[in-house]
Order: sequence, then C-alpha cells, then structure tokens
Amino acid sequence: MITKNGNTEIKNIVNLMKKSKTRQEKSTFVVEGIKMFCEIPRDRIIKAYATEKFYEENIKLFEGIEYALVSDNVFSYMSDTKTPQGILALVRMKKAKLSDIAESEKPLIMIIDELQDPGNLGTVIRTGEGAGITGVLLSKNTVDIYNPKTIRSTMGSIFRVPFVYSNDLAKDIDILKNKGIKVYASHLDGKCNYTEPDYCSGSAFIIGNESKGIRNEIVKHADTLIKIPMKGQVESLNAAIAATILMYEAGRQRDGSC
Amino acid sequence: MITKNGNTEIKNIVNLMKKSKTRQEKSTFVVEGIKMFCEIPRDRIIKAYATEKFYEENIKLFEGIEYALVSDNVFSYMSDTKTPQGILALVRMKKAKLSDIAESEKPLIMIIDELQDPGNLGTVIRTGEGAGITGVLLSKNTVDIYNPKTIRSTMGSIFRVPFVYSNDLAKDIDILKNKGIKVYASHLDGKCNYTEPDYCSGSAFIIGNESKGIRNEIVKHADTLIKIPMKGQVESLNAAIAATILMYEAGRQRDGSC
Repeated sequence: MITKNGNTEIKNIVNLMKKSKTRQEKSTFVVEGIKMFCEIPRDRIIKAYATEKFYEENIKLFEGIEYALVSDNVFSYMSDTKTPQGILALVRMKKAKLSDIAESEKPLIMIIDELQDPGNLGTVIRTGEGAGITGVLLSKNTVDIYNPKTIRSTMGSIFRVPFVYSNDLAKDIDILKNKGIKVYASHLDGKCNYTEPDYCSGSAFIIGNESKGIRNEIVKHADTLIKIPMKGQVESLNAAIAATILMYEAGRQRDGSC
Repeated sequence: MITKNGNTEIKNIVNLMKKSKTRQEKSTFVVEGIKMFCEIPRDRIIKAYATEKFYEENIKLFEGIEYALVSDNVFSYMSDTKTPQGILALVRMKKAKLSDIAESEKPLIMIIDELQDPGNLGTVIRTGEGAGITGVLLSKNTVDIYNPKTIRSTMGSIFRVPFVYSNDLAKDIDILKNKGIKVYASHLDGKCNYTEPDYCSGSAFIIGNESKGIRNEIVKHADTLIKIPMKGQVESLNAAIAATILMYEAGRQRDGSC
C-alpha cells in the first residue's frame, strides 16, 4: 500500500490532476469517483488507485486491470473533491480527427470558441449526448476538457462524444462548410430566430466565451447568425443554457419532421 | 468609516449572508457586486456598504440612498466572493402571493420541488425570465432563493420574476389546476414527449431535486408526466438544463402558433 504523499506515482497523479500541459505530454488524464470509474472503457484504464475500504467493497471492479492501494490520507491528498470516494484511475486519451466528427451520417456539431468554465463545458458535452450531437470542435484556448471538474460534469459523456481541439478554428469551420454542414453562430446581432432554420441536414452551432461571446474573426465564418429570444430584461443566457436550447431544438426537429 | 469586523452592523451582514433563518426573521437579504447592485429597485435598498475606492469611483450610484463606507479588510471579511468588488447592499424582501403568479394573463409557471443547488435555482430564474415565465412556486425545502450564490446566478432576474415559497406544495398545485392551469411533471416515467402538449394556455412545469427528482406525493398531483428524450447513454439531465428545455419549448410555441 502506498502511504506517502511523496511517492513518485502519487506526485505524478497530482500533476496530472492540476496541469493541462502534463496531461497533454503524457496523453493521460485522471478520472475520479465510482460513477465515473464505471463509465471508463476498460481498455483505456492505465492503472487504478483505491483506498483499502473501496477496494474491499468493490473487488469485482478491479478484475483484469492494474491497480494499487493507497492510504486514506494519500487518497485525500490526491483527490480533487472534498469528500473523496476512494477510487481514481489514470486513463489514456483517445484523439478524434475532424473527419471523425464531420463525416457521420447527419452531423450535428457543437463548435466551442474560448469557453472558460469547466462545468459549462462538461454540461454541454453531457446535454449534447442527450440531444444527439455527433461531435464537438473546440478552439485551442477553450478550457481543457480533461480538467477534473469538466470530466465530472460530463457524467461519462466524455467517453462517448467525440471531440477535437482545433489549432485553427476558422479553417476547420470552413472544412465543415465544404462538407455541406451549415454553420450557425448564436449571436446577439442575429436576425434569425433559432427556431427558423431547418437543422435536419448537417448542422453546427458555434457557442462563445461566457462574457465575450464568439470572437469576431470566428463569427464571420458562420453561414447564419441566429438569436435566442430573451424576454423581460435578460441580456444574455449562460453559455451551457444557450447551447442546450440550440441542441434540443435541432433534436426536436430531427425527431419529428426530418 | 467602519474598520472593525466586530462592528454590530458588520456582524449583522455576515449573519444575513450565511443564515437563511436570519434573512427570514428580518425580511432582509444581501446583494453583492456592482452589476447586481445596479439591478436592485432603489426603493428596496435599506443601506449600502462600500469601500472608499468603490465609492469614489461610483459616487452617483449612492444618490438618495443610505450608505456607509468600510475598510478593504472589513469588506473582504463580509464578502461572499474571492475577489470582492467593494459594494453590497441590504435589500428588503418582497413577498408575492400565489394569486400574483397564478392570475397573470397566460400563466407559465415553474414549480420547483426540493432543488438543492443554489446555482441551479438561480439559473432557472434567469433563464425563466428570458423564456417568459410569469412566476415560480417553490417547495419550502428548496434551497433559499436569497442564498448569495443563487442571487448572483439570477443576474438580476430575482428582482423581476415573482416567486412564492409554498408550505403545502401539493395543495398549491391543486389551486393552480383549479384556475385552469395544466401542470406537467418532468419525469423518467413520462410517456408523453415534452414537445407534444400545447403550452399556449396556462401551463406549469414541475422540476425536482438534482438526484431524487420530484417527490412521489407531488408527482401524482400533475396532470401529465412528460419526458425529455435522451439519446446515447445519458440517464438524466442537470435540473436547470431540463427546466431550460421545457421553458424554451413553451416560449417557442407561444411565440409562434399561439
């Protein structure tokens, strides 16, 4: 059993928890908690770390995977949560390509430009799976999808919704358009109500930063600016809320008349 | 200038920040930050507290209201945020009655049963104003709407959307039904897709607790159980996300064919 915080493996895990750069260098991220642990595709688990109590109560979960036991203190030290459940795992990243998300039968893609809140990103991924999106394209400065808070708020969708970080979002949007996908930007200047377009064929929605919205150089690559009507004195909606309204409107159309 | 944390007024503010019971006893709550301060109806401000720096930079905001200056240290001590903006205010509660929210022209009501996350509640209020809801009915064990986190996440909608805490939610739901309002419960057992009903006449949606959903004794008072379809392996949606989908579907119908 590992009982020292200074142990090399433990130091490695803490770095992977905290640092996006370390995660990228090692193509590895950390998944914590029993619900999320059960969602990990088994072949992507590099190694699990559990407290003795968790291990003894859930021994079947460890069949066929490499694992180590750690003391309660060490687990608390590694954990990203206030009430640790006693299980985490190192998981191999799986990189999708733009073609993976652009060439599904009827693409429905979320394009995320500079979103910063980890919980918002996770909520978009989780809700997006429910609405039937086929993939997510993220600008390189969007919050890291492997941030522990993002992973947790995806509730497992991170393992099922393909996503790609783009080094050149404008260029990748043009690639989507060349494949016949219509690109809609949610924008306060939009003249077109979000319920008007027909989302039955390949469609993509761009959502921007929580306070600044979508960058101008990205907006101009959209085919159509759409707006979500807001009554009362509401000036804006939370980014994940706006994404939800758009994704479920596309889902509604696709379930019905398409 | 108030320079001591032990000052009676400061202790009072800290209690109002932290304790729902104190807020109820005094019919007073605390609003923090410049954006939210500007949203407060002026006649409801009891007293404002500002740092000298904030006051000097925003002197016009203090015309006609009672205020006190406090040192930076005292402000940090009172503040609910990590990076305080130097302004907060004591605000008088304004209580709505069930009839206020039930007797608007075409009621669209959110009924909240035991929701626990302050941010979720605030997001429902903010998004609800945008979607055009006419009021909110909350079970008495729902998180306190005057929680500083809830207030912040309403982005000001708390001053514009009428709400009522109910001592007997089942009874109040029956009152709404007797006024001709159709009550829909979002429920995993729902057979009816949420897009099927006609929400053009008086309608209300019940949303439940983040993990337990709506209590059974409340569910049975609904006219219709509706479901939000979820693709992939998604088992549930965040409560504020589910509320958003329902409220904006009602808004979509009301903007179009009603």
